[in-house]
Amino acid sequence: MLKNFKNVEKTVFGRGGFDQLGAIVDERRSENDCFTVFLVDNYFEDKPLGQRIPSKPDDMLLFVDIQAHEPTTEQVDTIRDSILKKGLPSCIAGIGGGSVLDICKAVSLMVTNEGSSSLYQGLNLIKKPGVYAIGVPTIAGTGAEVSMTAVLTGPEKKLGLKCEWTVLNQILLDPDLIANVPTNQWFYTGMDCYIHCIESEKGIFNNAYSTAFGDQALRLCREIFLEENAGQTFENDEKLMVASLMGGSSLTYSEVGVCHALSYGLSYVFEYRHGFANCIAFNQLGDYYPEGVREFKDMVNRFQIDLPQNLSADWSDEEVSRMAEISIRLEHMWHHAFGENWKEKINIETIKGLFRRM
Amino acid sequence: MLKNFKNVEKTVFGRGGFDQLGAIVDERRSENDCFTVFLVDNYFEDKPLGQRIPSKPDDMLLFVDIQAHEPTTEQVDTIRDSILKKGLPSCIAGIGGGSVLDICKAVSLMVTNEGSSSLYQGLNLIKKPGVYAIGVPTIAGTGAEVSMTAVLTGPEKKLGLKCEWTVLNQILLDPDLIANVPTNQWFYTGMDCYIHCIESEKGIFNNAYSTAFGDQALRLCREIFLEENAGQTFENDEKLMVASLMGGSSLTYSEVGVCHALSYGLSYVFEYRHGFANCIAFNQLGDYYPEGVREFKDMVNRFQIDLPQNLSADWSDEEVSRMAEISIRLEHMWHHAFGENWKEKINIETIKGLFRRM
Repeated sequence: MLKNFKNVEKTVFGRGGFDQLGAIVDERRSENDCFTVFLVDNYFEDKPLGQRIPSKPDDMLLFVDIQAHEPTTEQVDTIRDSILKKGLPSCIAGIGGGSVLDICKAVSLMVTNEGSSSLYQGLNLIKKPGVYAIGVPTIAGTGAEVSMTAVLTGPEKKLGLKCEWTVLNQILLDPDLIANVPTNQWFYTGMDCYIHCIESEKGIFNNAYSTAFGDQALRLCREIFLEENAGQTFENDEKLMVASLMGGSSLTYSEVGVCHALSYGLSYVFEYRHGFANCIAFNQLGDYYPEGVREFKDMVNRFQIDLPQNLSADWSDEEVSRMAEISIRLEHMWHHAFGENWKEKINIETIKGLFRRM
Repeated sequence: MLKNFKNVEKTVFGRGGFDQLGAIVDERRSENDCFTVFLVDNYFEDKPLGQRIPSKPDDMLLFVDIQAHEPTTEQVDTIRDSILKKGLPSCIAGIGGGSVLDICKAVSLMVTNEGSSSLYQGLNLIKKPGVYAIGVPTIAGTGAEVSMTAVLTGPEKKLGLKCEWTVLNQILLDPDLIANVPTNQWFYTGMDCYIHCIESEKGIFNNAYSTAFGDQALRLCREIFLEENAGQTFENDEKLMVASLMGGSSLTYSEVGVCHALSYGLSYVFEYRHGFANCIAFNQLGDYYPEGVREFKDMVNRFQIDLPQNLSADWSDEEVSRMAEISIRLEHMWHHAFGENWKEKINIETIKGLFRRM
């Protein structure tokens, strides 16, 4: 049985596209209780973008804090409860990075599905479609704009809500919005794309579709982060938005692998942001992805990126064990990376060993 | 104002995917008058695929003749009328090449929009959404599986029905279905992808999105039609399906150019099939697309493809004039290829001159 995957319904791509958000939102205003929710990364609260949100007096403009940790089920539930006090929105627009897009996707489902979002972490557990969800990335690389998953950290696990209704209805990709991302952040998030393309290709679920999208995303990443014209340029901002989209699409049929499985453990226990955690982990995975890791190190050097090492010197055995337990539960990732008999190659001790390298 | 483009809603990709068509159709069976229409290229009527159509006793299984000419508005109207005698279908599945997919898209709209389809040739003339439309390509390259257009030849022009409802709701890309396409046909249709990617990139509407998709489609075309492992192989059938999809996507923001404008004239006057007409035209366009045409000729030689030349020796002045008149009306293509002031570079005489080279 092959996947029948749901695409984003509508896409705007191009500079200045953000100015079309108001009109897109207005098309929905007659639905449900006729108000729009804007979920915006609070980083923009005092930035020019924060002043450009096309909210009307009856709308809800919520600035979301995603600096402290990855999105949590508790955070999603709290936002959902505050929205439902006002009613059922006509649509929800998320403006921010992968975290805000995932919160937007999750909240749009949770306004129509009862109970805590932690009840729905997994595949096809959601019972009803959500309200219309719009994603506007302000940093690129995660692929959250096209993915079927809203990754949340819950009381027991870090795992996505995943069903065909999780996919955003509309995305608006405006390269102007990613022009001033701080360099480290630009790099960590861009590497999410690079790393998941490497993982996508090096595993058993990879097929011609994933390869075509993943290869092109990798090629774009090399232009942006490694080759002669690398850097945060006008052209590269555009390329990075497309690379993120294509990298996300490469996962439609394939899977992430070793790095993401470890990264989820790091984020769960130490609340590291996803892109940063990926970079910490990938840096030590030369045994599994030799060319990818070599190239990654070249890119780190090219931009003199801060990438801490020897972190594990300060980690307790208990912390390493907790990370390994979170990590080993991500069976679909290990299965993809090592095949059906992955348990013969990977166990909790191998995983602890990988964390101790970091 | 940037385009807000509609994507195909759902995609199945992979070998054996055709076996999922029955289940996909069944999900819709309670809609409208509860029957499915299968529009199938009549080439398959006595082939194994013709026996695998999952039609039930109450469905309509229509074998469509697309050998004689490109899809016409008359053909679409006739099929529509025959369907409406039975009622409004729950969905329409088109199984065939670009012609059948375009007929499927057009018929799905015309069962809900009154009058002849020739009334709707153009942009956003359609008034109402159609019924659910499913496309199953049996040959790859046209990009019809993802495009917003259903190209039809009408009494006055060859022009697409184009609106966001024209996009297929579901596509099913099974590389097994394109395994036995005759070599010439495989080549002509594959070249539709190659040529529209070249045209997409060489024009003013091209952007980072079009380039990323077009470049990767071109790279795949070179692997399939030119390089060491070129040919109709297991791997290349998969790559060609993805190339077609990506080539079609590269046109979302960009446009076709000189070759397609001329090709429409050839098909209108001589009823040449689209892929063949493109090849006849592109072969003479070295002045406009020098590298592309050089590489195209290498591909023609690699597979010893039948490509007639000196056709124009048998064309009357009146035929050349009619082709040029059809061609020059495709202003968006000339605009893309030569910029806003294209009329300073191209006129009816230049176009006639191009036809006389063929």
